[in-house]
Amino acid sequence: MTDAITATAPAATALPFGRWLAAHGQRVEHALERVLPPASMHPVRLHEAMRYAVLSGGKRVRPMLVYAAGEAVGAPGPALDCAACAVELIHAYSLVHDDLPCMDDDVLRRGRPTVHVQYGEALAMLVGDSLQALAFEVLAATAGNGAGGAASAAMVAELARAAGSTGMAGGQAIDLASVGARLDREALEDMHRRKTGALLRASVRLGGMCAAGTSAHGNDAGVPPMHPLDRYADAIGLAFQVVDDILDVEGDSATLGKTAGKDAEQNKPTYVSALGLEAARRLAGQLREQARGAIAPLGDAGHRLGEIADLIVLRES
Amino acid sequence: MTDAITATAPAATALPFGRWLAAHGQRVEHALERVLPPASMHPVRLHEAMRYAVLSGGKRVRPMLVYAAGEAVGAPGPALDCAACAVELIHAYSLVHDDLPCMDDDVLRRGRPTVHVQYGEALAMLVGDSLQALAFEVLAATAGNGAGGAASAAMVAELARAAGSTGMAGGQAIDLASVGARLDREALEDMHRRKTGALLRASVRLGGMCAAGTSAHGNDAGVPPMHPLDRYADAIGLAFQVVDDILDVEGDSATLGKTAGKDAEQNKPTYVSALGLEAARRLAGQLREQARGAIAPLGDAGHRLGEIADLIVLRES
Repeated sequence: MTDAITATAPAATALPFGRWLAAHGQRVEHALERVLPPASMHPVRLHEAMRYAVLSGGKRVRPMLVYAAGEAVGAPGPALDCAACAVELIHAYSLVHDDLPCMDDDVLRRGRPTVHVQYGEALAMLVGDSLQALAFEVLAATAGNGAGGAASAAMVAELARAAGSTGMAGGQAIDLASVGARLDREALEDMHRRKTGALLRASVRLGGMCAAGTSAHGNDAGVPPMHPLDRYADAIGLAFQVVDDILDVEGDSATLGKTAGKDAEQNKPTYVSALGLEAARRLAGQLREQARGAIAPLGDAGHRLGEIADLIVLRES
Repeated sequence: MTDAITATAPAATALPFGRWLAAHGQRVEHALERVLPPASMHPVRLHEAMRYAVLSGGKRVRPMLVYAAGEAVGAPGPALDCAACAVELIHAYSLVHDDLPCMDDDVLRRGRPTVHVQYGEALAMLVGDSLQALAFEVLAATAGNGAGGAASAAMVAELARAAGSTGMAGGQAIDLASVGARLDREALEDMHRRKTGALLRASVRLGGMCAAGTSAHGNDAGVPPMHPLDRYADAIGLAFQVVDDILDVEGDSATLGKTAGKDAEQNKPTYVSALGLEAARRLAGQLREQARGAIAPLGDAGHRLGEIADLIVLRES
């Protein structure tokens, strides 16, 4: 896929964004197809359920961030494919566990029955557990795919922190504890910085870290300057959640592919409940500007990241 | 700890096994204490529950295998500490998830209430998820602790395969599907080779792989000869499960620290139900001999591994 894209696009940024998105969307689908064990492999029901959980047409926002950040700093394509799959596998595992009866108890995801509705609770838990392990297996393969061993180990640590108790899983624990509570904006931001932001941020950073093994960045352990990427990632991480909260109020279940109005029904604190709808909309717009400002130092190379910031804020589902 | 052990033991193998075990047991407790986030760190309830799950006095068989295999091939101590913690964190996470109501629904573990009884189901799931992420974070730290980047990435891939859908989690899925079924010995072995064997085997292999960065094994990517370690690991992996099944029938809950007779009660296939008690005992003895035979080529360096094989087969809980 990398070769095909290069052949049709003399300058990467010349490709219209819609075509870039479609091409990279196909690319990560193919990569996920390849890294997931075939449904015919023993134990077949587990592998079938893992594929059901992952290959169900999500928006693949996190892989797009990996590719856009990686291409901005000249990272090798095969390493980016590994990192893109890894972040999406972590995301997919978190959705499977999040939907379980002991957590959000959701029955609909991307317009289809959730994994535990389709395969039972016990298998759904094992699906999530297995997808997390697979994410790290695939990420470790960046070592042999252009990133080098030291950068690969650093990426594993980065993704593990983003997924773990001070990142995504920690954010979910705070979310659990805050059902029915009234969080102020600072506490809400802290929760979302962990729950959703940490993995979005890691996606951007992993894209950048894949470039560590290239000659442009000298040695195996070096990574490109991360400050613009970090500030960008922080802004879009929060923007993503603010827009999610707005869509939960404004959207309908058919467009969202999940149950709308669920947050209010479950009495969960959201940006809309904390700020009101209009202020939440303004905040999303401000965060989009912050994200675009952060990557200005990257010049034209940051082009795709800017377009993804727009996509995140202006999406309708 | 490494220095203290070296100082009191001119030749490592001269230390009586009991003292070696006690010293390495203390060593891994200290290392686990260090790598687990403090209970005072936000989110505190999650971190408290993670520590409850891990720091509750298990036998630490897997860390002992890491140390014994690593010392047999001259691996650096700091890398072994990372690998020892990583395998124990994976083991601890699997127990937390295994005990959940949707799985084994167990209320007692190591003589204390299980994590979900103590902290609720949702948090118990997040504890398991967080411990798995932490395992990979800690294992990636082998890169900067004497193993080198390439070996560290290879170890992450090794542990991920052992924990994932074709290893431990896959074995649990097969276990789930076989409740009430009558498995023949081949099918039982396949299940246990995944469910328990894969992580025990990985523990032995990771110990060996930690030596990849030492001068004795030349370059960063090289690993010491794995055949004796692999054959040893296969034998003790099965032996461990056979003995577990025997103890479930013979033991009492107080000695085991968990509910005895649970397998029969849940109509789970075991070596005892498949072979009968006497034949299961004979099999455990044969596997112990196989394990000792496998490491004979290592000579005196394999001493501790032999003693651990004895420990696994002759234990009473």
